[in-house]
Amino acid sequence: MVDIIQAKRDGRELTKEQIQFVISGYTAGTIPDYQMSALLMAIYFEDMTPLEIGALTDAMLHSGDVLDLSAIPGIKVDKHSTGGVGDKISIPLAPLVAAAGAKNPMISGRGLGHTGGTLDKLEAIPGFNVDLTEQQFIDQVTTVGTAITSATGNLAPADKKIYALRDVTGTVEAIPLISSSIMSKKLASGTDGLVLDVKTGNGAFMKTEERAAALARALVRIGHLAGIKIIALLTDMDQPLGFTIGNALEIQESIAILQNQGPADVRDLTLTLGSHMLLQANLADDLTGARHILEKHLADGSALAKFKEMITAQGGDAGVVDDPTKLPQAKHTIPVLSTEAGMVTGMATDQLGVASMILGGGRQKKGDAIDPAVGIMLHKKIGDRVANGELLATIYAEEAQRPDVQAMVSEAIHLGPTATVPPLVHQVIE
Amino acid sequence: MVDIIQAKRDGRELTKEQIQFVISGYTAGTIPDYQMSALLMAIYFEDMTPLEIGALTDAMLHSGDVLDLSAIPGIKVDKHSTGGVGDKISIPLAPLVAAAGAKNPMISGRGLGHTGGTLDKLEAIPGFNVDLTEQQFIDQVTTVGTAITSATGNLAPADKKIYALRDVTGTVEAIPLISSSIMSKKLASGTDGLVLDVKTGNGAFMKTEERAAALARALVRIGHLAGIKIIALLTDMDQPLGFTIGNALEIQESIAILQNQGPADVRDLTLTLGSHMLLQANLADDLTGARHILEKHLADGSALAKFKEMITAQGGDAGVVDDPTKLPQAKHTIPVLSTEAGMVTGMATDQLGVASMILGGGRQKKGDAIDPAVGIMLHKKIGDRVANGELLATIYAEEAQRPDVQAMVSEAIHLGPTATVPPLVHQVIE
Repeated sequence: MVDIIQAKRDGRELTKEQIQFVISGYTAGTIPDYQMSALLMAIYFEDMTPLEIGALTDAMLHSGDVLDLSAIPGIKVDKHSTGGVGDKISIPLAPLVAAAGAKNPMISGRGLGHTGGTLDKLEAIPGFNVDLTEQQFIDQVTTVGTAITSATGNLAPADKKIYALRDVTGTVEAIPLISSSIMSKKLASGTDGLVLDVKTGNGAFMKTEERAAALARALVRIGHLAGIKIIALLTDMDQPLGFTIGNALEIQESIAILQNQGPADVRDLTLTLGSHMLLQANLADDLTGARHILEKHLADGSALAKFKEMITAQGGDAGVVDDPTKLPQAKHTIPVLSTEAGMVTGMATDQLGVASMILGGGRQKKGDAIDPAVGIMLHKKIGDRVANGELLATIYAEEAQRPDVQAMVSEAIHLGPTATVPPLVHQVIE
Repeated sequence: MVDIIQAKRDGRELTKEQIQFVISGYTAGTIPDYQMSALLMAIYFEDMTPLEIGALTDAMLHSGDVLDLSAIPGIKVDKHSTGGVGDKISIPLAPLVAAAGAKNPMISGRGLGHTGGTLDKLEAIPGFNVDLTEQQFIDQVTTVGTAITSATGNLAPADKKIYALRDVTGTVEAIPLISSSIMSKKLASGTDGLVLDVKTGNGAFMKTEERAAALARALVRIGHLAGIKIIALLTDMDQPLGFTIGNALEIQESIAILQNQGPADVRDLTLTLGSHMLLQANLADDLTGARHILEKHLADGSALAKFKEMITAQGGDAGVVDDPTKLPQAKHTIPVLSTEAGMVTGMATDQLGVASMILGGGRQKKGDAIDPAVGIMLHKKIGDRVANGELLATIYAEEAQRPDVQAMVSEAIHLGPTATVPPLVHQVIE
């Protein structure tokens, strides 16, 4: 192990055998944390070649169970987002592509820090079960076309152990480690196609487009090495997606999208990512055709019907779709008013995520309980004009007064004379 | 601690308080190995500023006891070598400078790998005690002028713990870590002046002059920050010092030096380092004057007498000085003959050190027993002409046949048409 650490430290490429030795030894506990953390820091500085990252992903993927989805007929396609604020795309996307005939087995996560998690949002629906067994998952994807669940069984245990160590040793931000972590879990979930939504901007983990693009390239290369269909879109996280941040609020907004309404950015990104999924599933000839198919399923109500079907299949109350008051409701709404006139020039997106977390809508650390009802509704986005005294945002809280959150939200929305609206999709990498 | 790791990882300077927090926390066990090793690897890549290295040294120095040598009258001066092959300089040097009136409290170490250790060499003298108590050490330096002992008590325990971790995490070679390790122990030993012999070449830890100079500069800077007199000489380790490698053999060669004989390089380096020590002790006006003083003590037998006095004070049999057969004798001598004619152009110095280790004269790992009698005597050095069939070296072994060591030694001595003799002192840094 010391030789391996020194080799990486000195910039030499590790062999597939060396990487397998490290991952199996670390998972088994024969390689101690202190050697693993030294290696992780050396990787942070010296990077890894595509072959090394591929071998690392493969070793982590095979450190535990690999789902066998072969019982599900057809090409299985999935979407993964690197996480952001107000990113509820999976929720309208899954039933939409399923309505169009795709098979979408989606294993999702929970929120942490300023970012939300799809599973937390779905749990805002009374009764919704995000802990399907492997058989329930396979059955539901086969019959309904989509299921969103937590990781079943023992997927990529090496990744869990390494991630916990990275978290306390300052080695989270290394692209080889981030990319192999994401892809080992995604490949272990057995999908045939994967559309990656790599966020860039002040609400994303990758603050710069350069870093986000580097991560996207690493992810796509791993997918190619593993022989799956893969494409990555670099999308904007310099402001929250849509108008809502918070679990029940984001379910409401997702329903609006499926009702052929809702915010333009959420609709556009859902259609864009979904179009790539349909292409991977061989359900359309080109992106334009795929988008038309999806638009039709939004317009004719079939995507909304598929969402009800999915909720019911997972034990939830599908009545929330027609009666949003069945979703958890916050006790109080608190307005955030503008104290000047101008145009919204930018947002401290991560701060808005933290504000929602502080209200109880997110987690400071793993295992914290969350309140599905609370959150923030924005009334303005970048490029919108604001009058002095106009409503910028509404806070959904359990308390009648939250001056701390009011101040955070107010400070996070920046006004100025002119604004540049960021593009929704920055780059496409395949 | 995660913030500190990230700060170093991102190239920011750590504060004195942060460094103290790390060292006291790690020594106390509240900072785990896996975080320390990640920080050490980040230091390997991001280096440390002189202020950081000074703070690190100071924190390690104060992690345990600090010797109080104030009971010894006068200026205390010491010499430290970064280690090499055949480096027995401390043994003639200590009595020589003591004969000239210097107070020389010398805390020394043991050999590991290809390098020898002064304590192991002294233990080749029957009865010699290298484990003096602090009071014995102070008393002997006061009365005899010099004492060579192992570290007494609890000097720099943080260094011990960090060194053990570096050894298994690929972080040995970082200059901030090497320099703070050396200087924390030396400063804890309470000396007023320190002459550093930083080895460079293929038998040294620092293989290149550039790396050795960087280490020397770091060491000297720490000394300045700590307010002691300090100077570093970069000296050659592209061939062994003198003709002997092995504990009893090196004692014999040291006695020869004190008898005003012995190899030119050992004599020259002893006089050079000793001259700087006399200057630091205010016992000479300049280097030339200092050298004359030392030459006189070699010529008049007073340095040799001082060595006998020192041996006797430390419980050893001073009779070895006049009768070297009282030193442990190897059972067999095995010749290494040249198989070609030419000039010695270079030596694989570390390999000669390993050959002596394999004979039993050194340690593969800490705690291994050693055989004081075995070793290698060279008959040729770089620049010497060699005839075909001429004796290159003699192996002193417990076995009658050691073809493995014969081959190693033979391969380690390189012949060619012309040679460049390396200078003994490459640079002086103060």
